[in-house]
Amino acid sequence: MAYNVAIVGATGAVGQQMIKMLEKSSLPVKNLRLLASKRSVGKTFLFKDQSISVEETTENSFEGVDIALFSAGGKTSAKFAPYAVKAGAVVIDNTSHYRQNPDVPLIVPEVNAHALNDHHGIIACPNCSTIQMMMALEPIRQEWGLERIIVSTYQAVSGAGAQAVEEAKKQISDVINEGTAVTEVEANILPSGGDKKHYPIAFNALPQIDLFTDNDYTYEEMKMTKETKKIMEDDAIKVSATCVRVPVLTAHSESVYIETKEVADIEAVKKAISEFPGTVLEDNPAEQIYPQAITAVDKTETFVGRIRRDLDIENGIHMWVVSDNLLKGAAWNSVQIAESLHEQGLVHPTKELLFELI
Amino acid sequence: MAYNVAIVGATGAVGQQMIKMLEKSSLPVKNLRLLASKRSVGKTFLFKDQSISVEETTENSFEGVDIALFSAGGKTSAKFAPYAVKAGAVVIDNTSHYRQNPDVPLIVPEVNAHALNDHHGIIACPNCSTIQMMMALEPIRQEWGLERIIVSTYQAVSGAGAQAVEEAKKQISDVINEGTAVTEVEANILPSGGDKKHYPIAFNALPQIDLFTDNDYTYEEMKMTKETKKIMEDDAIKVSATCVRVPVLTAHSESVYIETKEVADIEAVKKAISEFPGTVLEDNPAEQIYPQAITAVDKTETFVGRIRRDLDIENGIHMWVVSDNLLKGAAWNSVQIAESLHEQGLVHPTKELLFELI
Repeated sequence: MAYNVAIVGATGAVGQQMIKMLEKSSLPVKNLRLLASKRSVGKTFLFKDQSISVEETTENSFEGVDIALFSAGGKTSAKFAPYAVKAGAVVIDNTSHYRQNPDVPLIVPEVNAHALNDHHGIIACPNCSTIQMMMALEPIRQEWGLERIIVSTYQAVSGAGAQAVEEAKKQISDVINEGTAVTEVEANILPSGGDKKHYPIAFNALPQIDLFTDNDYTYEEMKMTKETKKIMEDDAIKVSATCVRVPVLTAHSESVYIETKEVADIEAVKKAISEFPGTVLEDNPAEQIYPQAITAVDKTETFVGRIRRDLDIENGIHMWVVSDNLLKGAAWNSVQIAESLHEQGLVHPTKELLFELI
Repeated sequence: MAYNVAIVGATGAVGQQMIKMLEKSSLPVKNLRLLASKRSVGKTFLFKDQSISVEETTENSFEGVDIALFSAGGKTSAKFAPYAVKAGAVVIDNTSHYRQNPDVPLIVPEVNAHALNDHHGIIACPNCSTIQMMMALEPIRQEWGLERIIVSTYQAVSGAGAQAVEEAKKQISDVINEGTAVTEVEANILPSGGDKKHYPIAFNALPQIDLFTDNDYTYEEMKMTKETKKIMEDDAIKVSATCVRVPVLTAHSESVYIETKEVADIEAVKKAISEFPGTVLEDNPAEQIYPQAITAVDKTETFVGRIRRDLDIENGIHMWVVSDNLLKGAAWNSVQIAESLHEQGLVHPTKELLFELI
């Protein structure tokens, strides 16, 4: 059995990685369709030595498609995902649009692949910053339970898309090569394309990712809170986040503090993390071994280090978590969801299709 | 009354700012002496339109000096500060060498200027990352008490000195202009000049500042813990830090989480911060107003924003704290200590001089 797969948003930073991850994946792909907006029509990309032309995403793009990977923004998912479902495809959506929908499983395969069983045609891939935190914390939660999480992120520019990366490079070049003052470089995208003001990321740290919500947390911060509770199926876990963009192009880093339900032995925590599939322990202070953004780029794993007990709280643990935000944080996790659907025989759903056309 | 002032380490990143801060200061300066290592002898710098030649630091450099500002590394302070004291100068030391000495006051003037009264010839200026955190938290501690602090830092390269800044710029240029891979740029300084391995800071986040201690925290992290307790004169305050270097040249940012002893009203917290001398409230999410590294450069104030209650803990508050690490974090705080000594009539100490020559 092999599948017809479509990528919606194929020309974007994540879409491009989805092509590569499908090449890397064991998922049997019969035919790959690359979909994007009108202006990208005619561009071609290689998939397993085969040249594929980009087509415009329309309501009729999904005929014969078994699996549709969406990563073209929430509005595109809202508009087209129901058509994909109606055409018989299962949608794996990498935007935030469906993540809190109770009929949509929110999946990190190593953590909650079992929840795929409940899908009604659409499955959501969590936010990049949530996924890597789940990969670090699930092995701890399984053995000692999780009471609370406080996380501060160091997020890469590519999380805001390929254009944000180009703008960041231009800003850095203007400062380094032209001597432009850091406050004077042109900024039109970050902190959030949809917001009123834009600030430079070059040589800066921006404590805003996505828009602000009414409670003075940003949507990005609230995603980490809500998605953690949904993925870990525990509304009682306390999660507060501070999400910050830094001048790194790819790979998010996170300073994570947790309190476990039962006091954990630190060496046992390291062992549990090292044995969890997809998570790699990089933790040896004597040899200066710890996760770094630049060494995590192009890797599908999540790297965890700097694991140590809080100086005062017996059940408190600090750690440093790094992963490629475009891979495990997006494209790889989406493709892994497709693999898991395949392995569980769930590509064609057994539940009622719920999503109505708008 | 005017003072003879010496700067030890005058050619360094902080020493250069000390000259500028002395120009800005109200401290009456009769004569300024610039001291550094042998290889800088003969360099000249302007102080209030007067050209001053750098002299070599020796045991005899401090004759006639009233105030000696040290910022040339812990070893230089250990070697020469006692000679300065013996010659009748009061030493304001910006290195970590004397900070935990019980006979050395550790001072952020807005917080604990009263402790200057106990000095025995040497006063320590705290670590940059501690100072700005104290400036944000002291107004809160005064009104509601402080139970615990969890801090994750986003520290600028200039905290590691002028050479680290040059290396960072070279690395960034090699990536942007030459297409060198981020993992392949040359690195000889960070994360810590004194450690075995060196890693690139360009497009990276390095979760190591200074060397590791035996408990798997770094010295930088333990400085934030120990110095907070000493400055706030409360060993019971719980402080755990994660200190991270980011590709910012100047101004440290900090994601700070605190629990107060009494539950605080968030608007009252903002008011208290805005009224504290030297601390500026920049907090208006609706207008995307929050502290940023690039706008804090060259300012002597500490900027605080993103103030919000924890989503679950009633006495938990998150905030974002930014300040120029070379100014309030070092040169300006040192000069402020000199101003405070002058104002309190403590330049010439009333206590026994305790520091013996090595």
